[in-house]
Amino acid sequence: MANLQNDLFIRACKRQPVERTPIWIMRQAGRYLPEYRAVRKKADFLTMCKTPELAAEVTIQPVDIIGVDAAIIFSDILVIPEAMGMHLDMIDGKGPVFQHPIKLEDDAAQLKKIEAATDLNFVLDAISLTKKELNGRVPLIGFSGAPWTLLTYMVEGQGSKSFSHVKKLIYNNPELAHKLLAMLTDAVADYLSAQIAAGADAIQIFDTWAGILSPRDYLVFALKYINQVILKLKRKGEPIIYFPKGVHNRMRITADCGADVISVDWTIDLAKARDKIGHKVAIQGNLDPTVLYAEPGFIRREARKVLESYGKGNGHIFNLGHGILPDVDPAHAKALVDFVKEESAVFHQNDVNTKVIN
Amino acid sequence: MANLQNDLFIRACKRQPVERTPIWIMRQAGRYLPEYRAVRKKADFLTMCKTPELAAEVTIQPVDIIGVDAAIIFSDILVIPEAMGMHLDMIDGKGPVFQHPIKLEDDAAQLKKIEAATDLNFVLDAISLTKKELNGRVPLIGFSGAPWTLLTYMVEGQGSKSFSHVKKLIYNNPELAHKLLAMLTDAVADYLSAQIAAGADAIQIFDTWAGILSPRDYLVFALKYINQVILKLKRKGEPIIYFPKGVHNRMRITADCGADVISVDWTIDLAKARDKIGHKVAIQGNLDPTVLYAEPGFIRREARKVLESYGKGNGHIFNLGHGILPDVDPAHAKALVDFVKEESAVFHQNDVNTKVIN
Repeated sequence: MANLQNDLFIRACKRQPVERTPIWIMRQAGRYLPEYRAVRKKADFLTMCKTPELAAEVTIQPVDIIGVDAAIIFSDILVIPEAMGMHLDMIDGKGPVFQHPIKLEDDAAQLKKIEAATDLNFVLDAISLTKKELNGRVPLIGFSGAPWTLLTYMVEGQGSKSFSHVKKLIYNNPELAHKLLAMLTDAVADYLSAQIAAGADAIQIFDTWAGILSPRDYLVFALKYINQVILKLKRKGEPIIYFPKGVHNRMRITADCGADVISVDWTIDLAKARDKIGHKVAIQGNLDPTVLYAEPGFIRREARKVLESYGKGNGHIFNLGHGILPDVDPAHAKALVDFVKEESAVFHQNDVNTKVIN
Repeated sequence: MANLQNDLFIRACKRQPVERTPIWIMRQAGRYLPEYRAVRKKADFLTMCKTPELAAEVTIQPVDIIGVDAAIIFSDILVIPEAMGMHLDMIDGKGPVFQHPIKLEDDAAQLKKIEAATDLNFVLDAISLTKKELNGRVPLIGFSGAPWTLLTYMVEGQGSKSFSHVKKLIYNNPELAHKLLAMLTDAVADYLSAQIAAGADAIQIFDTWAGILSPRDYLVFALKYINQVILKLKRKGEPIIYFPKGVHNRMRITADCGADVISVDWTIDLAKARDKIGHKVAIQGNLDPTVLYAEPGFIRREARKVLESYGKGNGHIFNLGHGILPDVDPAHAKALVDFVKEESAVFHQNDVNTKVIN
């Protein structure tokens, strides 16, 4: 960390004093940047993930163009099941699809036990290269899908409205579900440890489908495995961010999962979230991603509300409440970042000379 | 009400004492019943909605076959925009689609101001006929989409992941959004008043997309208009149920909207919901609809947890946390209903002789 020129993001993750609120934009490499689309023309999505030079290039674009305080490695959460042997199609306009989702014990038995160092080396190479090219300008975030969210994709084969298949699995064959989740937990922990070893300064675990579970099932099928992943991680102080999208009713227990930061979506009041868990963890969020469709004046007003909702003091990382949408005007993303950089200093006037509150 | 042989549902809505917890299953007429599919073979979906004899037939099926304590009229929330002049296609496997969603002021200006008595008379006729055929066995529930949810469909044209179009509308042209919401509020209130006049014993307002809004936007674009709808309703004590799916953080203010019952999805603890709002309103819910994929023994255990979570006393209507899924085994739905009927009596042992708590 000592070599980072801008370590605001890392300090905020650790609830240490900062001069202003750091900001990055979730899953920021993407179709909203013309510079990204120019690279994407040269190669399909998976080829980009598997070519460190291309992955590094698009990872750094938002740092150069939008001015965010952290980069996140360009990759996809589904590289784990793909490495396990599930054939992944990226279908334009529809997203990722597994043509042969897991249905039976037999399908599960055919999954390959993976080692990140060999099976996902392209991500590790992309991280090393990106770190080198970033040259300490901002921290680099590694990431993985959470075991529950990976299982959901592997069983559904794609996004879903009712999530019938994965629900049938957990209700009718919980043993198989737990076996798969345990296997995914090992893979995720190994993968994230390898990302840290390759140079990632922080880690985000995306649990996109945590919110489809009942409060009890969330504990049993999602949070339990997050806790295990975090316990297994080999790290030297690199912060862990957990993002259980759509979970609003288990904030207190979520904050005990071992993560340093909980990322929240836009349907929760940041003030309430901080009130409940801010003494335990830092909080990341939570501007509605669709606010970026509005004019910059409106974006600034809404961003100010997010800052005010969190209030004064450390422990806030500004972000959207979910991923940026592909048809957002890059100038609007830039307006948001500029505003937060300029206007957030007043929320930290007394921070820098005060002690860290644990 | 005096003529209802089974008024458990109505009493529970009013938090009056009951001998056992009433149960019905949301949007119950549907593809999960072979008897429904037999009718559906004779006519397409919209024809069924517009033919009172067919609508009455499938409305009553779950009362006869599954034994629920209330019927809900067979219809669709999108009959209002359709009556306003928007052409609706029901596409198998995809759901309802408006080929020409509202994009501009001009599109909005072309919407016809409707009167339920003439433009939606088929629903009113279906209610009258169903009431006659039910002959007081159980109450009949009328329903409508909420203004916000109707606006969302009218602007998106169909379901969505990011809801970009309706978010662009509320952020970039809130005046037009409010104009449309006011128009929809008048239409919904008139439509629901007409349903009550036609014989509906209770009303449910479905706000399927309330959960995509930030806490503040939920108040401004969804709840405000629910409050207006309820104030405008012409009724003589018929209970109103409001179902803001995915809203978990504004329970207290939601309970002030004027509805008698708040329906909650399965991602919230019923005990918590009751603790927050049970002194103001009755609560409907909240078994995860996918639990019905499991074996009856599992279904019974999960149903017991729902009963225990609500606990003893009045004010609970058992239901799923969202609509029943089309590939559920009807025997599983029946097992749920039988279980709740048998096992819920112990939660009401002291109710019937005690006074209503207001």
